Amino acid sequence: MTLTTEERLKLIKRNTSEVLTEEELTNLLKTKQNPSVYMGTATTGRPHIGYIAWAQKLADFSKAGFKIKVLIADIHGALDNTPWKLLNKRYEYYNIVIPAMIESVGGLKDNIELVRGSDYQLNKEYVMDLYKMSSYVSVRNSTKAASDVVKMGDNPMLSGLIYPLMQALDEEYLPVDVQLGGVDQRKIMVLAREFLPKLGYQPRIEIMIPLIKGLTQDGKMSSSIQNSKIDLLDDLKTIQDKLKLAYCPEGNSENGIMDFAKIVIMTQKQDKDEEFIIDRPEKWGGPLKFKTVEELENAFVSKQLHPMDLKNGVAIEIDKLLAPIREKMKDREQLIEEAYPQ
Amino acid sequence: MTLTTEERLKLIKRNTSEVLTEEELTNLLKTKQNPSVYMGTATTGRPHIGYIAWAQKLADFSKAGFKIKVLIADIHGALDNTPWKLLNKRYEYYNIVIPAMIESVGGLKDNIELVRGSDYQLNKEYVMDLYKMSSYVSVRNSTKAASDVVKMGDNPMLSGLIYPLMQALDEEYLPVDVQLGGVDQRKIMVLAREFLPKLGYQPRIEIMIPLIKGLTQDGKMSSSIQNSKIDLLDDLKTIQDKLKLAYCPEGNSENGIMDFAKIVIMTQKQDKDEEFIIDRPEKWGGPLKFKTVEELENAFVSKQLHPMDLKNGVAIEIDKLLAPIREKMKDREQLIEEAYPQ
Repeated sequence: MTLTTEERLKLIKRNTSEVLTEEELTNLLKTKQNPSVYMGTATTGRPHIGYIAWAQKLADFSKAGFKIKVLIADIHGALDNTPWKLLNKRYEYYNIVIPAMIESVGGLKDNIELVRGSDYQLNKEYVMDLYKMSSYVSVRNSTKAASDVVKMGDNPMLSGLIYPLMQALDEEYLPVDVQLGGVDQRKIMVLAREFLPKLGYQPRIEIMIPLIKGLTQDGKMSSSIQNSKIDLLDDLKTIQDKLKLAYCPEGNSENGIMDFAKIVIMTQKQDKDEEFIIDRPEKWGGPLKFKTVEELENAFVSKQLHPMDLKNGVAIEIDKLLAPIREKMKDREQLIEEAYPQ
Repeated sequence: MTLTTEERLKLIKRNTSEVLTEEELTNLLKTKQNPSVYMGTATTGRPHIGYIAWAQKLADFSKAGFKIKVLIADIHGALDNTPWKLLNKRYEYYNIVIPAMIESVGGLKDNIELVRGSDYQLNKEYVMDLYKMSSYVSVRNSTKAASDVVKMGDNPMLSGLIYPLMQALDEEYLPVDVQLGGVDQRKIMVLAREFLPKLGYQPRIEIMIPLIKGLTQDGKMSSSIQNSKIDLLDDLKTIQDKLKLAYCPEGNSENGIMDFAKIVIMTQKQDKDEEFIIDRPEKWGGPLKFKTVEELENAFVSKQLHPMDLKNGVAIEIDKLLAPIREKMKDREQLIEEAYPQ
């Protein structure tokens, strides 16, 4: 099945919040059958279900003919507060969990290249370019670029300012045509577009997806915000317990559970031509079925779908997505403990 | 001739302003016959006679049995505002002028190892340590450390903050026991002592020498301060013309010409068991001879030595020191033009 340029464009744009620029993307699709895209993940906290949104997006790219590169950014992890001594174990952990997750949402395994940051970010040419770029980017600019991504605090470390420059260089050195990231990456992506040309390189296309809200009332789902997330290795019981406590007021769809249902679950269902079925007990009205995001959202806002039923239905779906990931990590308790010592 | 530990200590300490720490230095001299010292020079502006003070100091180290390493810091030059495209030519320029200068003040040529920064500052181990160190040093600390050395301005570039960390790592990677530098390097040296141990390395001994004042009324002699300096390639006529205009009020020894005479000329003379002879015309009282810094300073402060005569005498001595350096650079007009395009 060959997709037209317009079909490819539509596939790539769905569930995104911004494309820099759409003109360049259209042109890329017209001129290359197999362009490349990368998504980087710094080896910091334990990956959670928020990551599934970008894994799913990568699956879209794959269907649109893109070569997929996933950067397991170990050095970036350390530049953003991961202890250096955990570098290797964190890498090992991500290197199992991340591809399992991409597979779980329909990414074609053979079409994904996993790259380890430290495999090329210590190379002479890369480092020379990093030194060069540091002489073009002001402290102010790099601070601003890092501010939404790196944990800076009151007394930021210099590493946090180096982080955005390396992310820019990664586009050139992987190399790729497109970078995919959450909207929190926007300032770094803009910096990359501004400064790669000063080194004589082409600016890349930057594509952003919305961040999934956390389970608590405020902020994105984040490893560093307690109770905001469901870990990729959580079991059904844990998922259910966490969702039970999660922020999800009746009739108000602005919450992390609805976000996940709308962005991930409904996309998965639609791609398989299935419905999202919530197995509501007969005494509360029996099963509910949703074909589209709009149907789901309308039911929730009009209070036909109760938060408790939504939570039950979403828990089952999350559990299905996580089952193959947990499977890949079973019997790896030692690695888990070494990568994330208690 | 073998020197005792105390004689070596005295030789190293003369004309210095601070030793961090003297206890460590004494211990080093007791335990090593041939320790090593390095002085780094970033390939920025054209070297001037202020550099002779440290060249002379290196000669002292050489006499005290030290192996001398001179770092021609090309990457540091670029991190401090030298255009990257001039990197190679600036390096070539320094690589001729700097050893010629050291030889001119009695440094033993065979005992000097010249190292080019980019020859090892792009190596994997070095860069990994740089990434690591950047995660331990705050933006605040690196800004403070760089402030007396790097030209920062209102909107400093990130490169200026990386500069001090590399200077710290250089101590480990050259490797050396001691770093020599002007007092303007103090904050970087203190940073090096604080943070090398966090990477598991020994802190090094830091030795500072006073900066020679510029020829204008304020500030140190510096390539970036117009009219403050005599270039290592200036000829006698130029030297004389510059000194004629230089700040040197009668009776006040706080000026760059007296600094140079006291620190460089008198040390050179005493080491050769010679006197500093100023060839004053008979009508103004005939020749003047000085055996010690005190004699010279007293004569100037008591106005027995007139600024014009001092300037004449110093011009002749500077010219003698520069003659062999100019000789090495004759017929190199093209290199000069390429390294410092007008």
